[in-house]
Amino acid sequence: MKIVLDAMGGDHAPGVVIDGAVLAAREFPGIEIVLVGQEEIIRTELARHDTTGLPLSIVHASEVVEMEEHTEAVKRKRDSSMRVGMRLVKDGRAGAFVSAGNSGGVMAAALFDLGRIRGIKRPALATVYPAAPTPILLLDMGANTDPKPEYLVQFARMGTTYVERMWGLSNPRVGIVSNGEEADKGNILVRETYPLLQASGLNFIGNVEGKDVTRGMADVVVTDGFTGNVMVKLSEGLVSFLVKYLKAELTGGTLNKAGLLLMVPGALAMIPGLLLLIPTLRRIAKRMDYAEYGGAPLLGVDGVVIIAHGRSNAKAIKNAVRVAKEAVESSMITAIKDGLKRLSVVEKSAPPPGAEAPGSAAEAC
Amino acid sequence: MKIVLDAMGGDHAPGVVIDGAVLAAREFPGIEIVLVGQEEIIRTELARHDTTGLPLSIVHASEVVEMEEHTEAVKRKRDSSMRVGMRLVKDGRAGAFVSAGNSGGVMAAALFDLGRIRGIKRPALATVYPAAPTPILLLDMGANTDPKPEYLVQFARMGTTYVERMWGLSNPRVGIVSNGEEADKGNILVRETYPLLQASGLNFIGNVEGKDVTRGMADVVVTDGFTGNVMVKLSEGLVSFLVKYLKAELTGGTLNKAGLLLMVPGALAMIPGLLLLIPTLRRIAKRMDYAEYGGAPLLGVDGVVIIAHGRSNAKAIKNAVRVAKEAVESSMITAIKDGLKRLSVVEKSAPPPGAEAPGSAAEAC
Repeated sequence: MKIVLDAMGGDHAPGVVIDGAVLAAREFPGIEIVLVGQEEIIRTELARHDTTGLPLSIVHASEVVEMEEHTEAVKRKRDSSMRVGMRLVKDGRAGAFVSAGNSGGVMAAALFDLGRIRGIKRPALATVYPAAPTPILLLDMGANTDPKPEYLVQFARMGTTYVERMWGLSNPRVGIVSNGEEADKGNILVRETYPLLQASGLNFIGNVEGKDVTRGMADVVVTDGFTGNVMVKLSEGLVSFLVKYLKAELTGGTLNKAGLLLMVPGALAMIPGLLLLIPTLRRIAKRMDYAEYGGAPLLGVDGVVIIAHGRSNAKAIKNAVRVAKEAVESSMITAIKDGLKRLSVVEKSAPPPGAEAPGSAAEAC
Repeated sequence: MKIVLDAMGGDHAPGVVIDGAVLAAREFPGIEIVLVGQEEIIRTELARHDTTGLPLSIVHASEVVEMEEHTEAVKRKRDSSMRVGMRLVKDGRAGAFVSAGNSGGVMAAALFDLGRIRGIKRPALATVYPAAPTPILLLDMGANTDPKPEYLVQFARMGTTYVERMWGLSNPRVGIVSNGEEADKGNILVRETYPLLQASGLNFIGNVEGKDVTRGMADVVVTDGFTGNVMVKLSEGLVSFLVKYLKAELTGGTLNKAGLLLMVPGALAMIPGLLLLIPTLRRIAKRMDYAEYGGAPLLGVDGVVIIAHGRSNAKAIKNAVRVAKEAVESSMITAIKDGLKRLSVVEKSAPPPGAEAPGSAAEAC
């Protein structure tokens, strides 16, 4: 199975992308990684590693979509790594596309070259929200800031299929983000979507409030891309604030410094006990590390597309490749198409050709 | 100065409300607390305390708005503690109204009996968001799930006045919650509001993402009531999840239990150092304790109304009374009215009488 990796996408590209490619090529049997981008640069980066015998190949793409560039630039740059990579998937020469480039750019490229799955109104960017008793698939997180109710129903359907196939959950619980639990709560979008989800045949459990998300009340949580984006970035910011704040407060001031110094002998005496906790501490760190989740699937385009975090390290890139591999192995796209057929609210009429629909690409954030 | 306290409102009413009233009456000079509610019940609760000489009085109200009751019930229950209390403020017999009852109910009562400030389209519920380098005033957090752009500009204006008067900040920075920093990011509402805020004469710094809120990039952060509500409840849920998760992980399993046991001697040896950290630990706990912030001001109604958390304890009730006292002392309502006059986008035509506008009360969540 060939997996395309966008060598030019990401805050730390191409260096860490190549590092991640090498890790993935070593660790996952049965895949070949196709590095797409400026060949000379890729070769230079690869030269830092011993790649003898590793299933790595290069496809040259002369242009680069920068981190702040969106739809217009992607449309123009037909020979960018994003667009060349997408066409490899479109033409059946690769099974999946992985990029840590800007999500708006990747989405635009996917819409231009792969197009949407027949019947899908809008693609959705799904992310794994880790701060709950079991991980949650949250979508949309930025692709559609002002979706229509039927988009959200499709997101719920696609999210359900994804979680069933990738996480092995059967009949996962679907919730919609709202400002109250009762059925009459929500903004206009939520109140209009609610009855559609009830009639969707999905395992819809109703409205979930912010606190319900972290309680794990649903496995698949749908929301508009504006709210989803704010939720994810606020959560990241809050954890980061708490760590920084506690550190600054506890290590600032003479009294605290003296206190911490006085605690050193005790802390040393705690080491034997602490050693026993290491497996648990490792598990906690792993659970909370975004790099373990390997990126967000772009659901609804006609091919496996995984968008890794812009600030991905090599491990995150490697895990994004793993997620792409698993999505291909589980026939994700076929499963999503099958799932859509079971969704009563999908319109049966043919959609406008997704690849060229300017509205869709323009809406990409 | 008389402050009305809704004795019947809150998850733990009337017990903790009376406890909080007694604390406030003892601590804050110059105020008289008017307990509104069912007189016999209030007298029974007061009998648990020594109230000799304390400035506490009772005004009987026969009806109670339950925690799940909203606009319709509030409209019908003209002799509820909420409505009787609001009329005391309306008639100038008290300076402020404080309740830990359900926010939708309090808002409806405020709209029925106090009405909106002339020119204000919709009131907003403002809350102190503590997880940032300096506290942030976040509004709206649930009053308006689908506001119009001009409402958000008024929220920004009222929030600015509140922060200037209550926190002593001059020319506070105003941001609008968005899914990206750039001016073209946001949902339709945000993109339409952005230029109005730029032209408002306020210290508008632009879009703030979820992570920017926790970085303290703005002092006043405006958003629609849907997003605001999700942000606050998600933050509460996330902190609660982290605490529970770490505790469960670290104390579960034989190995961890043995490890923790082995750490006891070391932990004991750390006590002297820990003692020096106590002032800091206290400050952290205080900073993160919702009860310290004393409730959310309902801005835009024609009187000081403070809504305390439904699960308020006595300390939270006491602090809500303090916030009400400070709002009265700083002539908050007059200041908001003055601030509105300086806002270029306010329509000059007379608004429909706020007190009876069914749309406003119906929208209360």
